[in-house]
Amino acid sequence: MSFDLVEVIGAAVFAATGVLAVNRKDLDLFGALVLGVVTAIGGGTLRDAILDAPVFWLSHYHVLWVAAGASVVTFFLARHLRRTFVILLYLDAVGVALFSVAAVDKSLGLNFDGTVAVAMGVLTAIGGGLLRDVLAGRPTLLMSREIYATPMLLGCLLYVLLRHQWPDFSGSGAIVVPLMIAFRAAVIHWRLTMPDWLTTAHEEELPQ
Amino acid sequence: MSFDLVEVIGAAVFAATGVLAVNRKDLDLFGALVLGVVTAIGGGTLRDAILDAPVFWLSHYHVLWVAAGASVVTFFLARHLRRTFVILLYLDAVGVALFSVAAVDKSLGLNFDGTVAVAMGVLTAIGGGLLRDVLAGRPTLLMSREIYATPMLLGCLLYVLLRHQWPDFSGSGAIVVPLMIAFRAAVIHWRLTMPDWLTTAHEEELPQ
Amino acid sequence: MSFDLVEVIGAAVFAATGVLAVNRKDLDLFGALVLGVVTAIGGGTLRDAILDAPVFWLSHYHVLWVAAGASVVTFFLARHLRRTFVILLYLDAVGVALFSVAAVDKSLGLNFDGTVAVAMGVLTAIGGGLLRDVLAGRPTLLMSREIYATPMLLGCLLYVLLRHQWPDFSGSGAIVVPLMIAFRAAVIHWRLTMPDWLTTAHEEELPQ
Repeated sequence: MSFDLVEVIGAAVFAATGVLAVNRKDLDLFGALVLGVVTAIGGGTLRDAILDAPVFWLSHYHVLWVAAGASVVTFFLARHLRRTFVILLYLDAVGVALFSVAAVDKSLGLNFDGTVAVAMGVLTAIGGGLLRDVLAGRPTLLMSREIYATPMLLGCLLYVLLRHQWPDFSGSGAIVVPLMIAFRAAVIHWRLTMPDWLTTAHEEELPQ
Repeated sequence: MSFDLVEVIGAAVFAATGVLAVNRKDLDLFGALVLGVVTAIGGGTLRDAILDAPVFWLSHYHVLWVAAGASVVTFFLARHLRRTFVILLYLDAVGVALFSVAAVDKSLGLNFDGTVAVAMGVLTAIGGGLLRDVLAGRPTLLMSREIYATPMLLGCLLYVLLRHQWPDFSGSGAIVVPLMIAFRAAVIHWRLTMPDWLTTAHEEELPQ
Repeated sequence: MSFDLVEVIGAAVFAATGVLAVNRKDLDLFGALVLGVVTAIGGGTLRDAILDAPVFWLSHYHVLWVAAGASVVTFFLARHLRRTFVILLYLDAVGVALFSVAAVDKSLGLNFDGTVAVAMGVLTAIGGGLLRDVLAGRPTLLMSREIYATPMLLGCLLYVLLRHQWPDFSGSGAIVVPLMIAFRAAVIHWRLTMPDWLTTAHEEELPQ
């Protein structure tokens, strides 16, 4: 059993934000457990299934226990944790940036093209949240103007470019990950949304 | 072509309950066919894709014909089958308990940890129904207080513990499966739902 | 990098129809990008994951660029492209017929049974659209009376029968694909829907 501290903390944070996001009338303990675990491991599971790599939690199965435990604790303490939701959002930003770049590294390490690597970075970032929202009957982030995935997409693109341009330079991650976190933190802090020209919202106001 | 009577009966029962559950205005024959088949084979398909085992119906393809046939028959006889829906629910309880434990066996047989085996047991039990509800635009069982998956989760946990504690004892399944069926049958008979302290329903009544 | 003109045109058409189908208030550029790409590659991805074949766009990664580019262009030109939507529907019919039959060929080439091949043909045809609609929170085609998948199901069945009956005859595709396109084109042109006796719509009018 291999152990990775970042992986464990990430699983707990993703599960907790997942449960808090869907916590509402008639959600029961079992539902919270499944939705929290799905949020935590969904993106990596889809990535590994598509790359035909062994699904990471088949060997790192402690991640299941961490995600399940964090989901149960969050379910019972939800009322008290709401005040800390914004702290969890910042931790989520750190985790999602790290795991996106790790997914790019994994894909490049398996000799897939940079295009595939960027797609896997984004899928790892948003896959768990998409599965959770679909299973919970909530609108997914694809149908909202919240800026969640764009920092991850741009960061993964930049990271692939840097690694391609300077293959011998090992500090690309140390440059890109803080930029991704800063972009996402700015979104959270100033509640930024997509500008009008990048949404279809303004269309309704135009004569047809 | 390998043949398994339990597998065939299970596929027919799951497809029939799947079609009856979504049968309503504007569902057409093709929709019923797909939703019935998805209900019957969805859980096992997800299990095999994650375990990187050959998806079971690629070789046991007669399961596709059975599920498709049961879906079509159920679609045309839906009005008459409604009265037998409760019988189908009990048959579903038997099938889902058997297939959950079989999924645990399959996972342990592939040398995965007990944690993974329990996750696969639960996924096999609920995966098909989750896919059906998502495709049909219905709330999934995760967002309801119905007790469907909890007996399967507890049963799979107990089964893994028994097999771990007494590896030479071959009767663990014969102990656990009837317990799972009895729990689920009690839920159906007395229309049990999750107690308040295991749901978030009571939260609404508290001052914020 | 292998290149295939039909694959490229298909990816562009599927992505464009995918974006136009969901284009509405509050969809942003990132959402359009993901939904367009998912529409284009979703069906083939599910097919390859189930067959345990390498997912086609891991090597044909130019398909990702084509689908992404077509999605972005469609997003910005949506207002003007609406008039061409019906043309895209006919192109979609051509593409989906070709890719369904190609999926049958791929499955038979991997020595799977004809039953599995038909299932893969239908999954390739509807998988991308189903994923798009679920992610966009729209009712899927399974819950509508539109005739989209039935021509593909019947065509794949006929194709498997022809190939089974005359294994040495290489023109089965040239017979079946035009039939599938003609059926689907008739549906689009005359706005055909499923007849009442193949839907449950009429049930509501009967005394219970």
